[in-house]
Order: sequence, then structure tokens, then C-alpha cells
Amino acid sequence: MSVTDAERSALRHAFALATNGPRGLNPQVGAVILSPEGAVLAEGWHHGAGTPHAEIDALSKLGPDAARGATAVVTLEPCNHTGRTGPCAVALIEAGVARVVYSAEDPGAVSSGGAERLHAAGVDVEGGVLREEGEDLISSWLTVQRLGRPHVTVKWAQSLDGRAAASDGTSQWITGPDARADVHRRRSRADAIVVGTGTVLADDPELTARTADGSLYEDQPRPVVVGIRAVPQEAALRRHPRPFMQDEGEDLRDLLDRLRELGAHRVFLEGGPTLAASFLRQGLVDELLVYVAPTLIGGDRVAVGDIGVTTIAEQRRLEIVGLDRLGDDILVTLTPKEG
Amino acid sequence: MSVTDAERSALRHAFALATNGPRGLNPQVGAVILSPEGAVLAEGWHHGAGTPHAEIDALSKLGPDAARGATAVVTLEPCNHTGRTGPCAVALIEAGVARVVYSAEDPGAVSSGGAERLHAAGVDVEGGVLREEGEDLISSWLTVQRLGRPHVTVKWAQSLDGRAAASDGTSQWITGPDARADVHRRRSRADAIVVGTGTVLADDPELTARTADGSLYEDQPRPVVVGIRAVPQEAALRRHPRPFMQDEGEDLRDLLDRLRELGAHRVFLEGGPTLAASFLRQGLVDELLVYVAPTLIGGDRVAVGDIGVTTIAEQRRLEIVGLDRLGDDILVTLTPKEG
Ligand SMILES: NC(=O)c1ccc[n+]([C@@H]2O[C@H](COP(=O)([O-])OP(=O)(O)OC[C@H]3O[C@@H](n4cnc5c(N)ncnc54)[C@H](OP(=O)(O)O)[C@@H]3O)[C@@H](O)[C@H]2O)c1
Ligand SMILES: NC(=O)c1ccc[n+]([C@@H]2O[C@H](COP(=O)([O-])OP(=O)(O)OC[C@H]3O[C@@H](n4cnc5c(N)ncnc54)[C@H](OP(=O)(O)O)[C@@H]3O)[C@@H](O)[C@H]2O)c1
Repeated sequence: MSVTDAERSALRHAFALATNGPRGLNPQVGAVILSPEGAVLAEGWHHGAGTPHAEIDALSKLGPDAARGATAVVTLEPCNHTGRTGPCAVALIEAGVARVVYSAEDPGAVSSGGAERLHAAGVDVEGGVLREEGEDLISSWLTVQRLGRPHVTVKWAQSLDGRAAASDGTSQWITGPDARADVHRRRSRADAIVVGTGTVLADDPELTARTADGSLYEDQPRPVVVGIRAVPQEAALRRHPRPFMQDEGEDLRDLLDRLRELGAHRVFLEGGPTLAASFLRQGLVDELLVYVAPTLIGGDRVAVGDIGVTTIAEQRRLEIVGLDRLGDDILVTLTPKEG
Repeated sequence: MSVTDAERSALRHAFALATNGPRGLNPQVGAVILSPEGAVLAEGWHHGAGTPHAEIDALSKLGPDAARGATAVVTLEPCNHTGRTGPCAVALIEAGVARVVYSAEDPGAVSSGGAERLHAAGVDVEGGVLREEGEDLISSWLTVQRLGRPHVTVKWAQSLDGRAAASDGTSQWITGPDARADVHRRRSRADAIVVGTGTVLADDPELTARTADGSLYEDQPRPVVVGIRAVPQEAALRRHPRPFMQDEGEDLRDLLDRLRELGAHRVFLEGGPTLAASFLRQGLVDELLVYVAPTLIGGDRVAVGDIGVTTIAEQRRLEIVGLDRLGDDILVTLTPKEG
């Protein structure tokens, strides 16, 4: 049996519902219950770890027998796992749902198998609908599952010869407006933006994601400052729409774990050179964005500090996954070669 | 009237003859004298400043009246200038040449006008034949005329973060085989290859242009060492097919003038960081080839030293004229932005 227009549009709505929930330890999931005629009976989403799954959230809004013969439309395959809540597959069967339409497969080793269980109970099951959108919705969460920590992108801007500033410390501007706009766009897609105290004290950055006209993007990553030095009272950072978090930076791995608990899937590390080198040295970087300006500066203000390489055999080999022109500048996108 | 096959093939031969002459202060020129039936009567080329021009060299091989009614085929428009030799246009007229076929126009302010003069004397003139080859032949000489010194390309290899070696000095290899093969190919097209004593003492380079299988290219640039320290007796450089020249490096501009007098149109500066920075600081660089490996090294062995920039407004802006992938590496080709 194929999918009806009503089901497809309910699924699109479920994608939107899903994003009401937090990006956190659990995936974002949305659900819509349709009558056999295709009318919306109830909607729900997953409100985060320890709360009911999306299907249960939707069912909870209906009277005891209201879902009998209904169709449940869900962005993710209903789970088959008894955790803090019972398996959703069982809840759907018990509610008398006749048909389940879902998008992405459940990739979890313990939670998958829901579709099979529903099918075995005589429920009509249709999976993989609008699969790409369904997988997009949970892709950063999947990455976090795979890595066991948030995905870390380190970004820096440098002259061709690898400098981040002139010898007197001035650094504005090395790269041009197109490169800077690209950084802001990417910031807006991250969940947290991390800088060292050195950068805060030297540059007094706002750490907001702004469009070309200076207005704020709708999504603003949480600002995080690493280091023991105090952020000045008059720091621009204090005017960020989200309050910043400060961490001593003694254990960067632990910092990432805490950011994950706070719902950060994507961390955007904007330097400076000392902090970026620490993340690199500890193998905590998954992607590098290096904005290279066609300019030479010389001197000792290097864009990346000591990364623990003493002899050429230890150099950190990377793989170029993107090479783009941005105005006068170049953006080199790389991933670590091993690990 | 159009050009005959015999004339065209004579012109091709003249291109080859031209390269018998030195690349030096004067352009390379070749000439062939054809009988009215298209048989080769004589050939010649310009042997360098102070010697007869190619047409005169060819005519000199014939008896007094042997060129009467003949066709002179020349790679460059015959000159109209009385220098150390008389105008070639006049010599051709006096020899009774009936027709002149040439390739490139004479770009010289004082020497041009030969075609007009020939025409006025009733000689049949056909110019611009195989123009592209004709211009190629003198293009590096034209560049030297324009710059007033040899054209200087500086090349270096670096990690993405602008390092040329690890902190213990090891540097082999940062870039891969494709990048290195590209360097050798470009070396073979240069007239001189320049390095500092620092590089000679640290790396003991051969400074030859070699193909992938290690054999020598036919054309080998003249090796030039800059600095006062002695080149060791056992240095690989001493096995170069051409003897190296050493210069103290007190006046780089003067060094370039002397290289020009020795016939160098294209100088390939291979570093190291200190010497490259000196050329850059003095505005003596026309092209930069930066081979960037996707690797991070950190530390203090930077690929470019102090170029005299102290504040960001002084940074040396360049223009990217090429961005290529070479195996795993990137080649960025640049020219200075101003001047
Ligand atoms: N080109 C670019 O893209 C770019 C980007 C950012 C900054 N910058 C430039 O970088 C310069 C600042 O450099 P910086 O190196 O001082 O800045 P930084 O890397 O932002 O800050 C380094 C500081 O972070 C703190 N920290 C805490 N835990 C750390 C850990 N595990 N590893 C490393 N650092 C840790 C330390 O300060 P505490 O003593 O406070 O703990 C350390 O001194 C400025 O001139 C700025 O303009 C350039
Ligand atoms: N990555 C690359 O592409 C690349 C290329 C070449 C070298 N390298 C590395 O660079 C390192 C050597 O560095 P380096 O800086 O010592 O080498 P260098 O630039 O080759 O040599 C510098 C020396 O040249 C002499 N010199 C004479 N006149 C000069 C002038 N006007 N300006 C500058 N120098 C002048 C001076 O020595 P005197 O006291 O003898 O006069 C000076 O110390 C080696 O580790 C080598 O592996 C890397």
C-alpha cells in the first residue's frame, strides 16, 4: 500500500513538531495521529530525555479508544525498547492503531525492531517515507552517538603564511566580507560557540551570528568561554542574547560531555590559537575550516600554536574535503586523516 | 598575397634556429633566406648583443648578388634601428631581397618600423605569420624589458599552518610527489635557480630539474647560491651539470641585473624563508607558487620569515591567479597586488 497525501502532509508537520523538542541526549521526534479519513486527531513531540516519546505524547492527548483504527505518522521508527518509558510499538498496538507511517529507521542497537513488532501484531507499517528529511532531522544526533561527544568544528582565519595577526596584534581584517559572512552563517547552525579567554580579552567579540546587514540570525549558538581569567564587565559578550558559560578548560573532553548534556550536537570552536591547538592535540576536532586570505604577514603571531609535533613524521595529516573561493579568500575544509 | 608552404616551413625552421642564440639582453631571432623557387639559400640567428642580427647573419653566408629576388623569412620584424649594427630593413633592401615574411612585430619603440620601410622600398612584406609562436619565442625577453630585470618566481612548500619544517628541522616530506614533480618541471623552464646558503647547508639540495624517474630534464637552470658561508666540498650542488655561481647577497637588485646580463629571463627562487623574505620585502617578486600540504605542524619553523610587516595595514596583499589540486596538495599561484 502506498502513502496518502494526508499522511505525507502529516509527516511534514511532524518534522516541524519534532524541532519543538530540545537537541539533546535523545533524538528530536514528532508524531501526528490521523483518523482513517485523514483528519488530525492529535500531535506530539519528544520533550527530551526522561519524558514520553513523541507517539506517546500524541496518544496521551486522546481519550481511551480514540486511536482505535487510526494511523500514527512518526518521523522516526517507533522504538521497541523498554527504557524509562515502555516500547512505543507496544503502546501503539495497545491503543489499537491500525497503521503506522514513519520516515527514518531507528538506528539504535537496543531500540530498533519496532516496525517488525508492529507488523507481527497485524499493524500495517510503511517506513522510509521522506527518508532524507527524516535522516536530516536526526543526523547531528546520530553523529553525536557515533562520536560519543559533540561534533567539533574548529575555524580560523589566516594569511597564506599562517599568521593570525601582525606583530603589533592587529588582525582586522585579514579575510574579506564573504569569508566573514560564511563564518556567521555557520555559527548560526552550531549549538555552541567556544573561544578562549585570550580571544575574549584581545578581541572583545560579540560571538553572535549576524547576517550581512548586522541583524541577528534566528538561531544563536550558546557562547562558551574557556579559561580562568574573568570576562570583563563591559565585554560585548555580555550583550549576547544567550548568557555565556565559562569553563576553566582543565578537561576539554569533560567540557564537551557537559555541552552534550546541555543539548549541543555541534560545537563551533573559534580559537584562538592556544585553545585550538589544545583541541587538536587532544584529537577532539572533527572538522577544520581554514579561511586563507591571499596576503603575507610574517612575524610570530601564528594562527595555530604548538600542537605537539616535534619531528616531521608526527605532522598531523588532514584530508581536504572542500576547496572554495570566497571573494578574494580561500576556504579549505578538512577532516583529520586518522581516527 | 598569402604565404607559401615553403615559407611557412622555413619560418618553423627559423624558430628552431633562433633558440641557438642565447637568452640574454637581446631577443632570440632566427632567419632563413629562400630562393624564389622556395629552396633554402642560407640560415642565420642572432648570437647575442653586439653581434649581427639574424637576417644579417644569414645574408653574410651568401655571395654579393645571391639574395637578389630572394625571400627573407624571419621570426621577428626586421629592425629599423641603427645600433651597433645598421637597420636590418636597409640591409635586406640593399641585398635586393624581393619579399620578407616575418612572425612577431618588433615591439621596440626605436627599432620598429622595419616593415614600413621595406614596403616603401618596394619589398613585398607579409607579417604576423604564426604570430603566436613568434610571440612565445620572445615573451620572456619582453617581460624582462618591461620589468627592467629578470622575472622572479618564488616557490615554497608549507603545511596549511605555514610551517616549512618541524621543530627539530626535519621537513621531508611535507608535500607529495605530484607537487614535487610540478616544481621540477617548472625549474626546467627557468634560467636560474636561486637558494640561500641556509638551505644549502641544511638540505644539501642538488638543484637539478629531474623527471619522475630521476633523470635530468634537458634544460637545467643555472644554480645560484646567495650568502657568504662556503658551500661544502662534498655538497650535492657541486655535481650539478652547470657550475654554481655564488653571490654575497648584499644587493639582490644588483644580483638580478648580473643574472640578466648572463641571459637569465626567468629566475626561480626556492628559498629558504630568510632569502624569500628579503626578496619579498624589497618588492623583487613577480609570482608566488605556494604548495600547501593538508597537514598541521605548529612550532616556529615558519615558511616565510619577517617581511617587514608590523601592523595589519601593512600586510602584503596578493592576488590569487591559480588554485589547483596536485595530488593531496594545493598549489596557490599569486601575484603581488600593487606594483
Ligand atoms: N585568526 C583567527 O581566526 C583568530 C581567532 C581567534 C583569535 N584570534 C587571535 O588570537 C589571539 C588570542 O590568542 P590566545 O592564544 O591568547 O587565545 P585563546 O586560545 O582564545 O585563549 C587561550 C587561553 O585560554 C585559556 N585556556 C583554558 N583552558 C585551556 C586549554 N585547555 N587549552 C588552551 N587554552 C586554555 C587560557 O587562559 P586562562 O589563563 O584564562 O585560563 C589560555 O591562555 C588574539 O590576538 C586574537 O585576535 C585569531
Ligand atoms: N619549505 C620550503 O619550500 C623550503 C625551501 C627552502 C628551504 N627550506 C628550509 O629552510 C631552512 C633554511 O632556512 P634559512 O632561512 O636559513 O635559509 P635561506 O633563506 O636559504 O638562507 C638564508 C641565508 O642566506 C644568506 N643571505 C645572503 N644575502 C641574503 C639576503 N639579502 N637576504 C637573506 N639572506 C641572505 C644568509 O647567509 P650567509 O650568512 O651565508 O650570508 C642567510 O642566513 C632549512 O630548514 C630548509 O629545509 C624550506
